[in-house]
Amino acid sequence: MTNIKSEHIPRATIQRLAVYVQVLENLQREGVEVISSEPLAKACNVNASQIRKDLAYFGEFGVRGVGYYVKSLIESITSALGVNREWRTVLVGVGNLGRALLNHKEFKLRGFHIVGAFDCDPFKIGEEISGLEVICTKRLKERVADLNVEIGIITTPPERAQRAANHLVDAGIKGILNYAPARISVPDDVFVEYVDFFHHLYALSFNITFSRNK
Amino acid sequence: MTNIKSEHIPRATIQRLAVYVQVLENLQREGVEVISSEPLAKACNVNASQIRKDLAYFGEFGVRGVGYYVKSLIESITSALGVNREWRTVLVGVGNLGRALLNHKEFKLRGFHIVGAFDCDPFKIGEEISGLEVICTKRLKERVADLNVEIGIITTPPERAQRAANHLVDAGIKGILNYAPARISVPDDVFVEYVDFFHHLYALSFNITFSRNK
Repeated sequence: MTNIKSEHIPRATIQRLAVYVQVLENLQREGVEVISSEPLAKACNVNASQIRKDLAYFGEFGVRGVGYYVKSLIESITSALGVNREWRTVLVGVGNLGRALLNHKEFKLRGFHIVGAFDCDPFKIGEEISGLEVICTKRLKERVADLNVEIGIITTPPERAQRAANHLVDAGIKGILNYAPARISVPDDVFVEYVDFFHHLYALSFNITFSRNK
Repeated sequence: MTNIKSEHIPRATIQRLAVYVQVLENLQREGVEVISSEPLAKACNVNASQIRKDLAYFGEFGVRGVGYYVKSLIESITSALGVNREWRTVLVGVGNLGRALLNHKEFKLRGFHIVGAFDCDPFKIGEEISGLEVICTKRLKERVADLNVEIGIITTPPERAQRAANHLVDAGIKGILNYAPARISVPDDVFVEYVDFFHHLYALSFNITFSRNK
């Protein structure tokens, strides 16, 4: 049940909502049922008014003098973002990083099932990783249609990222998570997210460099 | 040589500067020496005025009627961010993701040398990965001092992330890149960056869900 307001959730808010869900899910595993806004804010590295503002995009939450009900807040956030269902994904590029992601339990835990692994290397085709047989990238289109997949994950070397993206777009994929250190071009109706490790390392270097000079 | 203005570079700008460096380095590999602002902006998925605004934080760039000199612009950006030198890092948590990062060529290419790999699993200690012998995490402090390391990378399971962070802080590390899906607490003078895959997947789900409803 998504509220009409949620169509306008800004990008930075989505990023924080993902953190709130992570923290709330960890609290839930520890058996916490209710949490007040101050400790929740502290665990999320934000202030309590930021949380209230972010949650206001899709309704009223929190009970005065009580706090937030953990389970119901997780349900509301994931529902508003469209992540309260299974998303089927395929991965293109079975190198070290691709293998690590295929074995990463968190994807399935969060509802993102990797149901296909593709590579154009004949030495990798036929290999089984985490229960999936690696299939030739040329067969991506037929497999995506069979598997009802909506999201593609690219873990190829940078010089092969655009070709992988072309295969995914041709197969009718709606969104791409690109781990390759290269920009890719796709039609306007396909969404791309870049997982770029380096801006984090750049931010660390910058902060360390300048704090040291103080 | 960093300009005094660069102490105030906002976070979102650093993120874009990392993209500009990535795109410029790819152009340099292709032999491009000069690029005008429009094609550079297009390759970076921003508009030309955004690039000009971001670069203005640390000086005047671009030659009217010519464009940007690729090599000199890379040098200026990396210098302003403090990434124009080698950074020595250690990695804690030799699971699938840790192994993938130890084998990831891009870290070294970008000046981030992983010089130590640590794990508390006796079955992993002594194993050699990408030229590094896996060492017991209890020995982190002595090794970090020997190796002149400033940045720690955490790739442990979520429930071990805080302990890994404690070891890194105790060893005098100045910044942490945390890939574990858990928040960590560190003293105020230690910088933390989270590589969280899920906010990207959440953003994709959200965009796909709402564009489909249009």
